[in-house]
Amino acid sequence: MEYRIILIGCGTVGQGLLEIFDRKAEQLRDQHDFEPKVVAITDKLKGSVVAPDGLNIKKVLSLLKEGKKLNDYDGPRLKVEDFLDPLDLIEQVEADIMAEMTYTDIKTGEPATSYIKKALRTGKHVVTSNKGPAALHYHELKELANLNQRQFRIEGTVMSGTPVFHLVENGLAGNDIREIRGILNGTTNFILSKMETDGMEYDEALKLAQELGYAEADPTADVEGFDAVAKVVILANALMGGKIKPDEVKRQGISALRKKDILEAKAAGLRYKLIAKVKKDGSRIEASVSPEKLPFSDPLAGVMGAQNALTFDTDLMGKVTIQGAGAGRIETGFSILSDMLAISRGEKKK
Amino acid sequence: MEYRIILIGCGTVGQGLLEIFDRKAEQLRDQHDFEPKVVAITDKLKGSVVAPDGLNIKKVLSLLKEGKKLNDYDGPRLKVEDFLDPLDLIEQVEADIMAEMTYTDIKTGEPATSYIKKALRTGKHVVTSNKGPAALHYHELKELANLNQRQFRIEGTVMSGTPVFHLVENGLAGNDIREIRGILNGTTNFILSKMETDGMEYDEALKLAQELGYAEADPTADVEGFDAVAKVVILANALMGGKIKPDEVKRQGISALRKKDILEAKAAGLRYKLIAKVKKDGSRIEASVSPEKLPFSDPLAGVMGAQNALTFDTDLMGKVTIQGAGAGRIETGFSILSDMLAISRGEKKK
Repeated sequence: MEYRIILIGCGTVGQGLLEIFDRKAEQLRDQHDFEPKVVAITDKLKGSVVAPDGLNIKKVLSLLKEGKKLNDYDGPRLKVEDFLDPLDLIEQVEADIMAEMTYTDIKTGEPATSYIKKALRTGKHVVTSNKGPAALHYHELKELANLNQRQFRIEGTVMSGTPVFHLVENGLAGNDIREIRGILNGTTNFILSKMETDGMEYDEALKLAQELGYAEADPTADVEGFDAVAKVVILANALMGGKIKPDEVKRQGISALRKKDILEAKAAGLRYKLIAKVKKDGSRIEASVSPEKLPFSDPLAGVMGAQNALTFDTDLMGKVTIQGAGAGRIETGFSILSDMLAISRGEKKK
Repeated sequence: MEYRIILIGCGTVGQGLLEIFDRKAEQLRDQHDFEPKVVAITDKLKGSVVAPDGLNIKKVLSLLKEGKKLNDYDGPRLKVEDFLDPLDLIEQVEADIMAEMTYTDIKTGEPATSYIKKALRTGKHVVTSNKGPAALHYHELKELANLNQRQFRIEGTVMSGTPVFHLVENGLAGNDIREIRGILNGTTNFILSKMETDGMEYDEALKLAQELGYAEADPTADVEGFDAVAKVVILANALMGGKIKPDEVKRQGISALRKKDILEAKAAGLRYKLIAKVKKDGSRIEASVSPEKLPFSDPLAGVMGAQNALTFDTDLMGKVTIQGAGAGRIETGFSILSDMLAISRGEKKK
């Protein structure tokens, strides 16, 4: 079945998705009856292109690789002047699914939230890897989706394509989740790992993370726990029925930890990890992000480097842990595909 | 939606499932639109009962708890003399789903395989936790299911209710799986853990496992790797397109390992695990079960005690690891429910 797709944002995630569409076209069609037809792309920096008959993915990818604008796309297309504002583009272009992959603004969730609302109201399923709308407006957007009989899916917002929401929706369906605990920030986990295994001081490990591209020039969002806070809010609200906001999460980062602390813990058979946690106590939901000393026997203690992991504590299955990549171009691109395939499985069964 | 259900086998798994049906009736109906109506149960030791209007689960559970026969069920029911042979019962009782939970015969897969065929041919979905039919006849049974437009689901055959097949079908759909590696036998993992953490000799650790009920009086199936072989064959055939048989799997158990080996490995920063592995090399599928020394950084190295875990090596997501219970009354009972919910999700969307 063919799906007409609009991409909003075409940075690393969008290009990762396009690469997968290109490499996997045959497999997606033959094994999953899924044929993506990208009908529009708009990106703040890279321009826009609208082609109701579908874009040639290879052409788009080589255009972007050459650093050219999408407006330079050479092939059947509409005049792009008509679609300067992404909101107009979303409203006017007919499509089945919108993939929202713009930058995260964790204060306002904009402009992504407006894009998502517009798409749902004009009858499009929405898939996003953007933490902003999911952390700030999950219930509102989910309701709007239900009202329009469309889906609002957010697999990529927590551990890139490592299945979190798919796992709970399918494999763990029927369980009550009492607690979710995990390592949701690869940068801090990399820094803590280096401090322990290579005996680095905090500043040294942070500098290495920056050199390797794991940490930003301003590392605050990672090292002070804000990134993990956004993710834990998403888990609380989307999976445990919470209605919490980022500033209600107890937060402590790792920047005060020193090599001495790490090595003292190690000598005592413990390992520091930045643990994001959300717990249900009756109808009360409590969330926190803070460094914890874990015994080596904890499945989360073994998660080293830039990996992520989550442990679900459930009433029937006890503890189930999933570990995998928490970031990456192809991995986050895959999260978008994975949600599209879920939509397609649902529609095919109708 | 109501589902008429036949249970074949009502030992620990069947009773675990009935307990979940009882405890979770409201949640299953309200959150999953799933209302199980158990219309027949037959068990080699516990007798049979057939009640087209549905059995009272609480009554069945207390009957079994008192050590009575199902034939003593006190409530609306058919005369049980008409259904002495499970095959007749499966043929004659109208139902939507049959849950097959009899004992595993890994040599023949019988009588379970005949029960499953009969159910599929008479229009019932089949859910099983039995390794025999899944390891020996997966493709044949899957084809028979397709032919009859019914599902044949096997979540409970590898890691009890810890999602393996659900994970691959949903969260990882779109990936090619290059390799699956894991710890699939809790008994041997418990023994190896005890040898390392408590410095026990093999015989001592085995004895403890037997006392705790993790190991059988005859521990051969576990310690010589036969149980893990059956599971790795299921993974190879159901998830990687293999057509291999148990005797094609290279197998080595843990009974030759001594405390000395374990502690020498530990001193070198390594940990022995009984690793089940299946690898795709072009169209060639190779499977093995054998002790391996893993570096502590391997996610499988941290899996201690009776837990199970699997690492999927995929083309898009790299390595994704899931860890959880590998056995247990409620956990395996849940695997059956989990497959029933998957069937129900599929039907609702039609």
